[in-house]
Amino acid sequence: MEIQIAVAKINKYAVSESGDTLEVVERPNGGLSVVLADGQSSGRGAKAVSMMVVRKVIGLLAEGVRDGAAARAASDALYTEKGGKVSSTLNIASLDLHTKSIVLTRNNPAPVFIAHDGEVKSLEGDSKPIGTQRTIRPLIDEMPITAGLTIVFFTDGLVYAGDRRGKPMDAHSLMLELLKDKTISAQSIADSLLAKAIEHDEGRPGDDCSVVVVKVVPLVGDSVRRMNVRLPINLG
Amino acid sequence: MEIQIAVAKINKYAVSESGDTLEVVERPNGGLSVVLADGQSSGRGAKAVSMMVVRKVIGLLAEGVRDGAAARAASDALYTEKGGKVSSTLNIASLDLHTKSIVLTRNNPAPVFIAHDGEVKSLEGDSKPIGTQRTIRPLIDEMPITAGLTIVFFTDGLVYAGDRRGKPMDAHSLMLELLKDKTISAQSIADSLLAKAIEHDEGRPGDDCSVVVVKVVPLVGDSVRRMNVRLPINLG
Repeated sequence: MEIQIAVAKINKYAVSESGDTLEVVERPNGGLSVVLADGQSSGRGAKAVSMMVVRKVIGLLAEGVRDGAAARAASDALYTEKGGKVSSTLNIASLDLHTKSIVLTRNNPAPVFIAHDGEVKSLEGDSKPIGTQRTIRPLIDEMPITAGLTIVFFTDGLVYAGDRRGKPMDAHSLMLELLKDKTISAQSIADSLLAKAIEHDEGRPGDDCSVVVVKVVPLVGDSVRRMNVRLPINLG
Repeated sequence: MEIQIAVAKINKYAVSESGDTLEVVERPNGGLSVVLADGQSSGRGAKAVSMMVVRKVIGLLAEGVRDGAAARAASDALYTEKGGKVSSTLNIASLDLHTKSIVLTRNNPAPVFIAHDGEVKSLEGDSKPIGTQRTIRPLIDEMPITAGLTIVFFTDGLVYAGDRRGKPMDAHSLMLELLKDKTISAQSIADSLLAKAIEHDEGRPGDDCSVVVVKVVPLVGDSVRRMNVRLPINLG
């Protein structure tokens, strides 16, 4: 099989630094983890928070700590550092080649979509951001790595896209529409969702927005592992 | 401008775990760092070494430590951990948006190619792997971020491709050939170099091989940041 991971990310309009941080790291026992955090508010302060959270999580995952424990530790660390006054959302998606499963760990009220066979369901349960209480725990879902599976999660820039203009976005319907094309790539799904969010915000994103898509497909082609990053920069 | 980072990576033939580790991480003051290590020998032991080295480096970079100091620290940590008996190569390529420069830090005898205006030069100097002495220091080159710049580095799987079969590969000539197409993407360069190495090894890579390409191009298109990962897996 082949795993595709795609990310599309844009900053809040006229803000040079995104408050979202995302890293993809190798797991010590095989596989990968994608870690996404969105620090409270936007700009530099939010970036420092989300970087701290992601660093904490990937440091622990590298030591072999389980995802749920890493999320709790990040919550406690943020609580301690900021006196419970600053929150951050956190999503971890791990491909565990040992257990042959995908583990989704979330402290984020935004939905996580799981699509298979043309159906799109949203993961159940009320999930709270980390950092504001000592009792915060993540919601964890685990599923076998199966060809045809598509997982999508995002920060709240996508959830609230268009809200201020009274044109809220319906990500669930868009997903259903996109998945009619069974060969659509993870990158096309991520790009389409983000493009729709920007459109609902009339070209001026109201918040930082990151979309992550994980897709499992039958292996076609070579056994080369690839990574590709595109980073638009403005050196002023 | 737009920065493209592309990676193509394959394991040694019939070995399930690569001894190479590569991570792309955000820098705390803006920009990205690509960190690549190749642990001595192959398989599980080499993987543990290269993961340890990369973890050490990205942990320090995240704290704002300069690349050269992070490389020295990784060397000393590996020396201490393994009593000087195990070496690892290390390459760090950092896009520092603060200084508007690319910093290349290397402890790797394999060449680093810098291409601009159709010319390809190899960075000078004798560079030693880390971990075997307490006096090891990296070679560091810094250059401004300029449209048209292409940087290529790799692990020794590419250097020795075809050697055992008496058909050594000429990566420099292939680079010159590829860069005749001025619009070639970073991914196409990485894929072509790796494909040629595999061809010289007659389809059975004699070692783990990772190729990293960083390309600076004028900005065309939107300001969306993208990342795409393709991971072929065999769940057995």
